[in-house]
Amino acid sequence: MTSLAMIEAAAERIKGHARKTPLLSSPFLDDIAGRRLLVKPECLQHTGSFKFRGGWAALSAMDEETRKRGVLAFSSGNHAQGVAAAAKAHGAPAVIIMPADAPQLKIDNTRALGAEVVLYDRVGGESREELGNHYATTRGLTLVKPYDEPEVIAGQGTVGLEIAEQATAEGVTSGDVLVCCGGGGLTSGVALALEAHAPGLRVRPAEPQGFDDVTRSLQSGQIESNASTSGSICDAILTPAPGDITFPILSRLCGPGIVITEDEALHAMALAFLRLKIVVEPGGAAALAAALFHGDQIEGDAVIAVATGGNVDPAMFIRALEQHA
Amino acid sequence: MTSLAMIEAAAERIKGHARKTPLLSSPFLDDIAGRRLLVKPECLQHTGSFKFRGGWAALSAMDEETRKRGVLAFSSGNHAQGVAAAAKAHGAPAVIIMPADAPQLKIDNTRALGAEVVLYDRVGGESREELGNHYATTRGLTLVKPYDEPEVIAGQGTVGLEIAEQATAEGVTSGDVLVCCGGGGLTSGVALALEAHAPGLRVRPAEPQGFDDVTRSLQSGQIESNASTSGSICDAILTPAPGDITFPILSRLCGPGIVITEDEALHAMALAFLRLKIVVEPGGAAALAAALFHGDQIEGDAVIAVATGGNVDPAMFIRALEQHA
Repeated sequence: MTSLAMIEAAAERIKGHARKTPLLSSPFLDDIAGRRLLVKPECLQHTGSFKFRGGWAALSAMDEETRKRGVLAFSSGNHAQGVAAAAKAHGAPAVIIMPADAPQLKIDNTRALGAEVVLYDRVGGESREELGNHYATTRGLTLVKPYDEPEVIAGQGTVGLEIAEQATAEGVTSGDVLVCCGGGGLTSGVALALEAHAPGLRVRPAEPQGFDDVTRSLQSGQIESNASTSGSICDAILTPAPGDITFPILSRLCGPGIVITEDEALHAMALAFLRLKIVVEPGGAAALAAALFHGDQIEGDAVIAVATGGNVDPAMFIRALEQHA
Repeated sequence: MTSLAMIEAAAERIKGHARKTPLLSSPFLDDIAGRRLLVKPECLQHTGSFKFRGGWAALSAMDEETRKRGVLAFSSGNHAQGVAAAAKAHGAPAVIIMPADAPQLKIDNTRALGAEVVLYDRVGGESREELGNHYATTRGLTLVKPYDEPEVIAGQGTVGLEIAEQATAEGVTSGDVLVCCGGGGLTSGVALALEAHAPGLRVRPAEPQGFDDVTRSLQSGQIESNASTSGSICDAILTPAPGDITFPILSRLCGPGIVITEDEALHAMALAFLRLKIVVEPGGAAALAAALFHGDQIEGDAVIAVATGGNVDPAMFIRALEQHA
């Protein structure tokens, strides 16, 4: 179980390695959102997403011998790049299991960051967990899970420590913090950090239509699954269900989820281009889309949205601009 | 004449108003540049460019009565938005004279920021200075020049104070700092700040082919003009010649200019999209293009490039992605 102390320790180890991303804003976006909107652009993090934080936290927490044998990760792409970069910086070998339908950019980048990439058939239902266990056993690698892993949650929680400090400096001490949510690693880590450091800020998951497992799980009070784990442009956050470790945290600390459409994600990407000058991928734009287009589900004078990643193929980005800019 | 003390005073007045932009980097860009490359993304500044700093510095330095009468600015767009936003925040009226061929996005934004926009015919040779003087005289407005203005240079110089601090923190204490250069306000301000705070860092202007007035002026030792002030996609930095105030500073402190092509600017925009997740406009990509594609003119293990602005129309951005991403 991830504790506040683990998040704070991860923040110490990450210092000077992860970027402290700023809080961005635009009067034009405030107008659309109907309230003050602050955006935490984790797309500007190393490897283009917050996942670098969790990767670094996990690698830096290992003993030297374990780390030298190497690590293994499975991911739709952003966790892959985060672990690959963190492993390279720590001198550790990395094997990354990726879905064959992940954006080519993410596959190429993971390889270029020095990792060995193994593709699996997500659509056909191949189990990435079984494949991962095979590699872990035969090569002595340590599995770094994408979200249901205490040190990874601790690393992602450093986003929450920064939000607490930066929002307070902006005079925002109450309101919703919207987080693009897959398995809930970032969402739960941020929630734990804010519980201690900015208790007036409440985390709420943002998810795409058809992949709203966390939103439904929070409603029912038990872990609910998605019918499918592919078929949305929001590829970064298509996980089967909240994790056994993340769900109790989400359940205790988070407000209701907000569900957005793919079109709203593309629209949010175009507005982030126009008004914030940042590149956000569809899955990374879910929280911003929720803040911009679902203001009726939000209360308070201010809202914070985490733009979780920017690893989008040019064709998809052009689609967002052509349809909405 | 702008002094270091003026830059430091401007930094105090701007604190909490301008964003402190981070230094970004990517191992993929280091590979292309052939050395370590740090990018200062001023496209993430309020209004999408560094010009907000100069506008804020000028407005905040005025006495209350002068400020209340209002300000006037002429600009291809970024200075316009910077002054408009700073004026609005100070409760001062603003009249902005803009070329009729400026990107529509910049014209629209300047109006939306509360300024009165007056368009003039840049291609036909209409003098924006005469038009500006007319408005200044008839309405009692104070002209805030885009670059040849001591307080504006001081405001832009705050970019240099941040670079000095951030580069030192990254272990970079010597090398070239490439700055996209129009009239030289940012370039001279950064040079003054670095002279005092990071004397091992040398500023060099980056300019587009055909609009290399500063590069030629530095070579000849006297102010040289461009044959034209329009006809490049790098609209943000198409000024007729270095200024009477900026040129002596540039001449004393800057290294040789680097001239880039329009195609290189588009390529740099695409790489900034792919690797840094930031939106850069053509004129704002000149320094990055120089770092990436003119490494043979650069010495040292590290280079810093300022990405000065991100106010680009979607069609131009799509062109960059289609041609180079």
